[in-house]
Amino acid sequence: MPRIARRGLLFVLSSPSGAGKTTLARRLIDEDPMISMSVSVTTRKPRPGEVDGRDYVFVDDARFAQMKDGGELLEWARVFGNHYGTPRAPVEAAIGAGRDVLFDIDWQGAQQLEEKLPHDLVRVFILPPSAQDLAKRLSARGQDSPEVVAGRMAAASAEISHWPEYHYVIVNADLDTSSASLRAILTAERMKRERQLGLSDFVRRMQSEL
Amino acid sequence: MPRIARRGLLFVLSSPSGAGKTTLARRLIDEDPMISMSVSVTTRKPRPGEVDGRDYVFVDDARFAQMKDGGELLEWARVFGNHYGTPRAPVEAAIGAGRDVLFDIDWQGAQQLEEKLPHDLVRVFILPPSAQDLAKRLSARGQDSPEVVAGRMAAASAEISHWPEYHYVIVNADLDTSSASLRAILTAERMKRERQLGLSDFVRRMQSEL
Repeated sequence: MPRIARRGLLFVLSSPSGAGKTTLARRLIDEDPMISMSVSVTTRKPRPGEVDGRDYVFVDDARFAQMKDGGELLEWARVFGNHYGTPRAPVEAAIGAGRDVLFDIDWQGAQQLEEKLPHDLVRVFILPPSAQDLAKRLSARGQDSPEVVAGRMAAASAEISHWPEYHYVIVNADLDTSSASLRAILTAERMKRERQLGLSDFVRRMQSEL
Repeated sequence: MPRIARRGLLFVLSSPSGAGKTTLARRLIDEDPMISMSVSVTTRKPRPGEVDGRDYVFVDDARFAQMKDGGELLEWARVFGNHYGTPRAPVEAAIGAGRDVLFDIDWQGAQQLEEKLPHDLVRVFILPPSAQDLAKRLSARGQDSPEVVAGRMAAASAEISHWPEYHYVIVNADLDTSSASLRAILTAERMKRERQLGLSDFVRRMQSEL
Protein backbone atom coordinates (compact mmCIF):
# COMPACT_ATOMS: atom_id res chain seq x y z
CA MET A 1 0.00 0.00 0.00
CA PRO A 2 1.50 3.33 -1.07
CA ARG A 3 2.33 5.88 1.64
CA ILE A 4 1.74 9.41 0.39
CA ALA A 5 3.58 12.04 2.45
CA ARG A 6 1.09 14.37 4.06
CA ARG A 7 1.23 17.77 5.69
CA GLY A 8 -0.62 17.84 9.03
CA LEU A 9 -3.39 20.29 9.74
CA LEU A 10 -4.52 22.56 12.56
CA PHE A 11 -7.97 21.40 13.59
CA VAL A 12 -9.70 24.25 15.41
CA LEU A 13 -12.82 23.68 17.48
CA SER A 14 -14.72 26.68 18.81
CA SER A 15 -18.08 26.90 20.52
CA PRO A 16 -19.81 28.63 23.39
CA SER A 17 -19.08 26.81 26.64
CA GLY A 18 -21.79 24.27 27.36
CA ALA A 19 -22.05 23.03 23.76
CA GLY A 20 -20.01 19.85 24.30
CA LYS A 21 -16.78 20.90 22.63
CA THR A 22 -14.43 19.58 25.30
CA THR A 23 -16.06 16.12 25.29
CA LEU A 24 -15.91 15.99 21.48
CA ALA A 25 -12.27 17.06 21.48
CA ARG A 26 -11.32 14.39 24.02
CA ARG A 27 -13.08 11.66 22.03
CA LEU A 28 -11.26 12.63 18.86
CA ILE A 29 -7.89 12.59 20.62
CA ASP A 30 -8.63 9.23 22.25
CA GLU A 31 -9.72 7.61 18.98
CA ASP A 32 -7.12 8.93 16.58
CA PRO A 33 -3.38 8.55 17.26
CA MET A 34 -2.47 11.00 14.47
CA ILE A 35 -3.97 14.03 16.18
CA SER A 36 -2.99 15.48 19.54
CA MET A 37 -4.02 18.45 21.62
CA SER A 38 -2.06 21.67 21.37
CA VAL A 39 -0.40 22.46 24.71
CA SER A 40 -0.60 26.15 25.64
CA VAL A 41 1.85 28.18 27.65
CA THR A 42 0.36 30.16 30.50
CA THR A 43 1.40 32.51 33.27
CA ARG A 44 -1.33 31.25 35.58
CA LYS A 45 -0.31 29.02 38.48
CA PRO A 46 -0.76 25.25 38.14
CA ARG A 47 -3.92 23.84 39.71
CA PRO A 48 -3.80 20.63 41.74
CA GLY A 49 -3.32 17.69 39.38
CA GLU A 50 -2.11 19.75 36.41
CA VAL A 51 1.14 18.52 34.91
CA ASP A 52 3.66 20.96 33.41
CA GLY A 53 4.16 20.13 29.71
CA ARG A 54 0.98 18.04 29.52
CA ASP A 55 -1.86 20.35 30.58
CA TYR A 56 0.08 23.57 30.10
CA VAL A 57 3.62 24.79 29.91
CA PHE A 58 3.83 27.06 32.97
CA VAL A 59 5.98 30.16 32.51
CA ASP A 60 6.46 33.48 34.30
CA ASP A 61 5.46 36.88 32.93
CA ALA A 62 8.96 37.71 31.70
CA ARG A 63 9.27 34.50 29.70
CA PHE A 64 5.77 34.93 28.25
CA ALA A 65 6.56 38.49 27.14
CA GLN A 66 9.78 37.22 25.56
CA MET A 67 7.91 34.52 23.62
CA LYS A 68 5.24 36.96 22.47
CA ASP A 69 7.70 39.65 21.38
CA GLY A 70 10.02 37.12 19.75
CA GLY A 71 7.32 35.74 17.46
CA GLU A 72 7.32 32.39 19.27
CA LEU A 73 3.52 32.36 19.72
CA LEU A 74 0.88 31.63 17.10
CA GLU A 75 -1.86 33.24 19.19
CA TRP A 76 -2.28 34.60 22.68
CA ALA A 77 -4.93 36.02 24.99
CA ARG A 78 -5.30 37.53 28.43
CA VAL A 79 -8.02 35.97 30.58
CA PHE A 80 -8.70 37.16 34.17
CA GLY A 81 -5.24 38.70 34.38
CA ASN A 82 -3.37 35.59 33.18
CA HIS A 83 -1.69 35.13 29.82
CA TYR A 84 -2.22 32.13 27.57
CA GLY A 85 -0.58 31.38 24.25
CA THR A 86 0.22 28.71 21.65
CA PRO A 87 3.93 28.11 21.00
CA ARG A 88 4.70 28.01 17.31
CA ALA A 89 7.58 25.50 17.26
CA PRO A 90 5.80 22.28 18.39
CA VAL A 91 2.85 22.99 16.06
CA GLU A 92 5.11 23.48 13.04
CA ALA A 93 7.10 20.38 13.94
CA ALA A 94 3.92 18.30 14.15
CA ILE A 95 2.35 19.41 10.88
CA GLY A 96 5.68 19.15 9.10
CA ALA A 97 5.82 15.51 10.21
CA GLY A 98 2.27 14.81 9.00
CA ARG A 99 0.61 14.89 12.40
CA ASP A 100 -2.47 16.98 13.18
CA VAL A 101 -2.94 19.36 16.10
CA LEU A 102 -6.27 20.01 17.80
CA PHE A 103 -7.09 23.46 19.19
CA ASP A 104 -9.84 24.11 21.69
CA ILE A 105 -9.90 27.92 21.39
CA ASP A 106 -12.33 30.79 20.98
CA TRP A 107 -12.95 32.98 17.92
CA GLN A 108 -10.14 35.35 18.87
CA GLY A 109 -7.58 32.56 18.94
CA ALA A 110 -8.94 31.15 15.69
CA GLN A 111 -8.59 34.53 14.00
CA GLN A 112 -4.96 34.80 15.08
CA LEU A 113 -4.15 31.30 13.81
CA GLU A 114 -5.83 32.18 10.53
CA GLU A 115 -3.38 35.07 10.11
CA LYS A 116 -0.37 32.84 10.71
CA LEU A 117 -1.19 29.53 9.01
CA PRO A 118 -4.30 30.01 6.83
CA HIS A 119 -3.73 27.01 4.54
CA ASP A 120 -3.23 24.54 7.36
CA LEU A 121 -6.27 25.61 9.34
CA VAL A 122 -9.57 23.71 9.46
CA ARG A 123 -12.12 25.58 11.54
CA VAL A 124 -15.14 23.82 13.03
CA PHE A 125 -17.84 25.54 15.07
CA ILE A 126 -19.98 23.53 17.49
CA LEU A 127 -23.47 24.88 18.15
CA PRO A 128 -25.83 23.74 20.91
CA PRO A 129 -29.12 22.26 19.66
CA SER A 130 -31.20 25.03 21.24
CA ALA A 131 -31.11 28.04 23.54
CA GLN A 132 -33.00 26.02 26.17
CA ASP A 133 -30.38 23.28 26.10
CA LEU A 134 -27.52 25.74 26.44
CA ALA A 135 -29.24 27.65 29.26
CA LYS A 136 -29.80 24.40 31.13
CA ARG A 137 -26.13 23.41 30.87
CA LEU A 138 -24.84 26.85 31.82
CA SER A 139 -27.04 27.13 34.90
CA ALA A 140 -26.57 23.51 36.01
CA ARG A 141 -22.94 24.04 36.94
CA GLY A 142 -23.55 24.84 40.59
CA GLN A 143 -25.38 27.24 42.83
CA ASP A 144 -24.40 30.35 40.91
CA SER A 145 -26.18 33.67 41.23
CA PRO A 146 -28.52 34.76 38.41
CA GLU A 147 -25.98 37.45 37.54
CA VAL A 148 -23.21 34.90 37.01
CA VAL A 149 -25.48 32.74 34.82
CA ALA A 150 -26.58 35.81 32.84
CA GLY A 151 -22.93 36.71 32.29
CA ARG A 152 -22.24 33.20 30.94
CA MET A 153 -25.23 33.47 28.61
CA ALA A 154 -23.98 36.80 27.26
CA ALA A 155 -20.52 35.32 26.69
CA ALA A 156 -22.09 32.32 24.91
CA SER A 157 -24.13 34.59 22.68
CA ALA A 158 -21.04 36.63 21.79
CA GLU A 159 -19.08 33.48 20.90
CA ILE A 160 -21.96 32.12 18.80
CA SER A 161 -22.04 35.33 16.75
CA HIS A 162 -18.74 34.25 15.15
CA TRP A 163 -20.03 31.02 13.56
CA PRO A 164 -19.78 32.45 10.00
CA GLU A 165 -15.96 32.52 10.34
CA TYR A 166 -15.75 28.71 10.39
CA HIS A 167 -15.50 26.20 7.54
CA TYR A 168 -17.78 23.63 9.12
CA VAL A 169 -20.68 23.89 11.55
CA ILE A 170 -21.94 21.02 13.69
CA VAL A 171 -25.17 21.31 15.63
CA ASN A 172 -24.43 19.06 18.61
CA ALA A 173 -27.82 17.49 19.24
CA ASP A 174 -26.38 14.00 19.78
CA LEU A 175 -22.85 13.33 20.98
CA ASP A 176 -22.28 10.16 18.92
CA THR A 177 -23.52 11.77 15.71
CA SER A 178 -21.45 14.89 16.28
CA SER A 179 -18.41 12.82 17.12
CA ALA A 180 -18.80 10.88 13.87
CA SER A 181 -19.23 14.13 11.93
CA LEU A 182 -16.05 15.51 13.45
CA ARG A 183 -14.11 12.37 12.57
CA ALA A 184 -15.47 12.56 9.01
CA ILE A 185 -14.30 16.15 8.66
CA LEU A 186 -10.82 15.20 9.84
CA THR A 187 -10.67 12.17 7.51
CA ALA A 188 -11.89 14.24 4.56
CA GLU A 189 -9.49 17.11 5.17
CA ARG A 190 -6.59 14.64 5.16
CA MET A 191 -7.66 13.61 1.65
CA LYS A 192 -7.47 17.18 0.38
CA ARG A 193 -5.18 17.31 -2.61
CA GLU A 194 -3.01 20.14 -1.30
CA ARG A 195 -2.27 18.35 1.99
CA GLN A 196 -0.97 15.20 0.27
CA LEU A 197 2.47 16.52 -0.48
CA GLY A 198 3.70 13.24 -1.95
CA LEU A 199 1.06 13.05 -4.70
CA SER A 200 3.04 14.78 -7.44
CA ASP A 201 5.94 12.37 -7.09
CA PHE A 202 3.60 9.41 -6.75
CA VAL A 203 1.74 10.26 -9.95
CA ARG A 204 4.91 11.10 -11.89
CA ARG A 205 6.44 7.75 -10.98
CA MET A 206 3.24 5.92 -11.91
CA GLN A 207 3.00 7.63 -15.28
CA SER A 208 6.62 6.84 -16.06
CA GLU A 209 5.79 3.15 -15.50
CA LEU A 210 2.63 3.07 -17.62
CA MET B 1 -33.25 17.40 16.97
CA PRO B 2 -33.04 20.52 14.82
CA ARG B 3 -33.28 20.12 11.08
CA ILE B 4 -31.10 22.64 9.29
CA ALA B 5 -32.10 23.18 5.66
CA ARG B 6 -29.27 22.13 3.38
CA ARG B 7 -28.35 22.71 -0.24
CA GLY B 8 -27.36 19.48 -1.98
CA LEU B 9 -24.04 19.07 -3.73
CA LEU B 10 -22.66 17.63 -6.95
CA PHE B 11 -20.26 14.86 -6.03
CA VAL B 12 -17.94 14.27 -8.96
CA LEU B 13 -15.80 11.13 -9.19
CA SER B 14 -13.17 10.90 -11.89
CA SER B 15 -10.43 8.36 -12.45
CA PRO B 16 -8.76 6.38 -15.18
CA SER B 17 -10.82 3.29 -15.96
CA GLY B 18 -9.55 0.35 -13.95
CA ALA B 19 -9.11 2.33 -10.72
CA GLY B 20 -12.31 1.09 -9.07
CA LYS B 21 -14.42 4.21 -9.47
CA THR B 22 -17.60 2.45 -10.60
CA THR B 23 -17.53 0.04 -7.64
CA LEU B 24 -16.96 2.90 -5.21
CA ALA B 25 -19.79 4.93 -6.75
CA ARG B 26 -22.21 2.02 -6.50
CA ARG B 27 -21.35 1.42 -2.84
CA LEU B 28 -21.95 5.04 -1.98
CA ILE B 29 -25.33 5.05 -3.71
CA ASP B 30 -26.35 1.81 -2.02
CA GLU B 31 -25.37 3.00 1.45
CA ASP B 32 -26.70 6.54 1.41
CA PRO B 33 -30.32 7.35 0.52
CA MET B 34 -29.59 11.09 0.19
CA ILE B 35 -27.35 10.72 -2.87
CA SER B 36 -28.31 9.34 -6.25
CA MET B 37 -26.61 8.87 -9.57
CA SER B 38 -26.99 11.49 -12.25
CA VAL B 39 -28.81 10.03 -15.25
CA SER B 40 -27.35 11.12 -18.59
CA VAL B 41 -29.11 11.65 -21.88
CA THR B 42 -27.55 9.88 -24.84
CA THR B 43 -28.08 9.44 -28.53
CA ARG B 44 -26.63 5.95 -28.46
CA LYS B 45 -28.99 3.00 -28.81
CA PRO B 46 -30.06 1.14 -25.63
CA ARG B 47 -28.13 -2.06 -24.91
CA PRO B 48 -29.92 -5.20 -23.72
CA GLY B 49 -31.06 -4.73 -20.14
CA GLU B 50 -30.74 -0.94 -20.11
CA VAL B 51 -33.83 0.89 -18.91
CA ASP B 52 -34.80 4.28 -20.32
CA GLY B 53 -34.84 6.85 -17.52
CA ARG B 54 -32.80 4.68 -15.15
CA ASP B 55 -29.55 3.90 -17.00
CA TYR B 56 -29.90 6.70 -19.55
CA VAL B 57 -32.52 8.90 -21.06
CA PHE B 58 -32.38 7.85 -24.72
CA VAL B 59 -32.96 10.65 -27.22
CA ASP B 60 -32.42 11.18 -30.94
CA ASP B 61 -29.87 13.57 -32.46
CA ALA B 62 -32.41 16.34 -33.03
CA ARG B 63 -33.59 16.34 -29.44
CA PHE B 64 -30.00 16.23 -28.16
CA ALA B 65 -29.04 19.23 -30.31
CA GLN B 66 -32.10 21.07 -29.05
CA MET B 67 -31.15 20.39 -25.40
CA LYS B 68 -27.57 21.44 -26.00
CA ASP B 69 -28.43 24.63 -27.84
CA GLY B 70 -31.21 25.51 -25.40
CA GLY B 71 -28.90 25.47 -22.39
CA GLU B 72 -30.60 22.38 -20.97
CA LEU B 73 -27.32 20.49 -20.45
CA LEU B 74 -24.74 21.04 -17.72
CA GLU B 75 -22.06 19.16 -19.67
CA TRP B 76 -21.83 17.05 -22.79
CA ALA B 77 -19.36 14.95 -24.74
CA ARG B 78 -19.10 12.99 -27.96
CA VAL B 79 -17.73 9.44 -27.58
CA PHE B 80 -17.38 7.06 -30.55
CA GLY B 81 -19.88 9.12 -32.54
CA ASN B 82 -22.55 9.17 -29.84
CA HIS B 83 -23.57 12.14 -27.73
CA TYR B 84 -23.85 12.09 -23.96
CA GLY B 85 -24.98 14.89 -21.67
CA THR B 86 -26.25 15.81 -18.20
CA PRO B 87 -29.65 17.51 -18.10
CA ARG B 88 -29.64 20.57 -15.89
CA ALA B 89 -33.23 20.48 -14.55
CA PRO B 90 -33.16 17.26 -12.47
CA VAL B 91 -29.79 18.19 -10.95
CA GLU B 92 -30.97 21.62 -9.89
CA ALA B 93 -34.20 20.18 -8.52
CA ALA B 94 -32.24 17.66 -6.44
CA ILE B 95 -29.73 20.05 -4.91
CA GLY B 96 -32.46 22.64 -4.29
CA ALA B 97 -34.28 19.97 -2.26
CA GLY B 98 -31.15 19.10 -0.25
CA ARG B 99 -30.33 15.89 -2.10
CA ASP B 100 -26.89 15.13 -3.54
CA VAL B 101 -26.09 13.95 -7.05
CA LEU B 102 -23.21 11.65 -7.93
CA PHE B 103 -21.34 12.05 -11.23
CA ASP B 104 -19.13 9.38 -12.72
CA ILE B 105 -17.48 11.55 -15.39
CA ASP B 106 -14.07 12.34 -16.82
CA TRP B 107 -12.02 15.51 -16.47
CA GLN B 108 -13.76 17.16 -19.44
CA GLY B 109 -17.18 16.72 -17.89
CA ALA B 110 -15.89 17.90 -14.50
CA GLN B 111 -14.48 21.06 -16.09
CA GLN B 112 -17.84 21.84 -17.70
CA LEU B 113 -19.72 21.32 -14.43
CA GLU B 114 -17.21 23.59 -12.71
CA GLU B 115 -18.13 26.37 -15.12
CA LYS B 116 -21.84 26.01 -14.42
CA LEU B 117 -22.10 25.26 -10.69
CA PRO B 118 -18.70 25.89 -9.08
CA HIS B 119 -19.95 26.32 -5.49
CA ASP B 120 -21.97 23.13 -5.48
CA LEU B 121 -19.23 20.93 -6.91
CA VAL B 122 -17.07 18.54 -4.88
CA ARG B 123 -14.44 16.90 -7.08
CA VAL B 124 -12.77 13.64 -6.06
CA PHE B 125 -10.08 11.90 -8.08
CA ILE B 126 -9.48 8.17 -7.63
CA LEU B 127 -5.95 6.96 -8.34
CA PRO B 128 -4.87 3.32 -8.73
CA PRO B 129 -2.28 2.18 -6.15
CA SER B 130 0.38 1.56 -8.82
CA ALA B 131 1.06 1.39 -12.53
CA GLN B 132 1.38 -2.40 -12.24
CA ASP B 133 -2.05 -2.70 -10.65
CA LEU B 134 -3.67 -0.52 -13.31
CA ALA B 135 -1.95 -2.40 -16.15
CA LYS B 136 -3.14 -5.70 -14.73
CA ARG B 137 -6.75 -4.53 -14.57
CA LEU B 138 -6.72 -2.97 -18.01
CA SER B 139 -5.28 -6.04 -19.69
CA ALA B 140 -7.41 -8.54 -17.72
CA ARG B 141 -10.61 -7.48 -19.42
CA GLY B 142 -10.51 -10.02 -22.18
CA GLN B 143 -8.36 -11.32 -25.00
CA ASP B 144 -7.57 -7.89 -26.37
CA SER B 145 -4.68 -7.18 -28.71
CA PRO B 146 -1.59 -5.44 -27.32
CA GLU B 147 -2.56 -2.38 -29.36
CA VAL B 148 -5.97 -2.14 -27.67
CA VAL B 149 -4.38 -2.51 -24.22
CA ALA B 150 -1.74 0.11 -25.10
CA GLY B 151 -4.52 2.47 -26.19
CA ARG B 152 -6.27 2.02 -22.84
CA MET B 153 -3.02 2.69 -20.99
CA ALA B 154 -2.50 5.93 -22.93
CA ALA B 155 -6.08 7.01 -22.16
CA ALA B 156 -5.54 6.19 -18.47
CA SER B 157 -2.35 8.22 -18.39
CA ALA B 158 -4.10 11.19 -19.99
CA GLU B 159 -6.94 11.06 -17.47
CA ILE B 160 -4.50 10.78 -14.55
CA SER B 161 -2.72 13.94 -15.68
CA HIS B 162 -5.78 15.94 -14.54
CA TRP B 163 -5.61 14.95 -10.86
CA PRO B 164 -4.55 18.48 -9.77
CA GLU B 165 -7.98 19.81 -10.80
CA TYR B 166 -9.72 17.92 -7.99
CA HIS B 167 -10.40 18.90 -4.36
CA TYR B 168 -9.71 15.45 -2.95
CA VAL B 169 -7.52 12.57 -4.07
CA ILE B 170 -7.98 8.96 -2.96
CA VAL B 171 -5.37 6.33 -3.74
CA ASN B 172 -7.55 3.22 -4.04
CA ALA B 173 -5.27 0.57 -2.54
CA ASP B 174 -8.08 -1.04 -0.54
CA LEU B 175 -11.75 -0.86 -1.50
CA ASP B 176 -13.13 -0.72 2.07
CA THR B 177 -10.73 2.04 3.11
CA SER B 178 -11.42 4.05 -0.04
CA SER B 179 -15.15 3.58 0.39
CA ALA B 180 -14.93 4.88 3.97
CA SER B 181 -12.85 7.85 2.79
CA LEU B 182 -15.42 8.69 0.15
CA ARG B 183 -18.24 8.54 2.69
CA ALA B 184 -16.23 10.76 5.04
CA ILE B 185 -15.76 13.35 2.30
CA LEU B 186 -19.49 13.38 1.56
CA THR B 187 -20.37 13.65 5.28
CA ALA B 188 -17.86 16.44 5.80
CA GLU B 189 -18.96 18.42 2.76
CA ARG B 190 -22.54 18.35 4.04
CA MET B 191 -21.28 20.03 7.24
CA LYS B 192 -19.75 22.91 5.30
CA ARG B 193 -21.13 26.17 6.59
CA GLU B 194 -22.18 27.50 3.19
CA ARG B 195 -24.25 24.40 2.35
CA GLN B 196 -26.32 24.60 5.54
CA LEU B 197 -28.72 27.24 4.30
CA GLY B 198 -30.83 27.18 7.45
CA LEU B 199 -28.01 28.09 9.84
CA SER B 200 -28.51 31.86 9.83
CA ASP B 201 -32.16 31.52 10.86
CA PHE B 202 -31.34 28.80 13.36
CA VAL B 203 -28.67 30.91 15.09
CA ARG B 204 -30.76 34.08 15.00
CA ARG B 205 -33.65 32.30 16.68
CA MET B 206 -31.35 30.76 19.28
CA GLN B 207 -29.77 34.10 20.13
CA SER B 208 -33.16 35.76 20.51
CA GLU B 209 -34.03 33.11 23.09
CA LEU B 210 -30.82 33.35 25.11
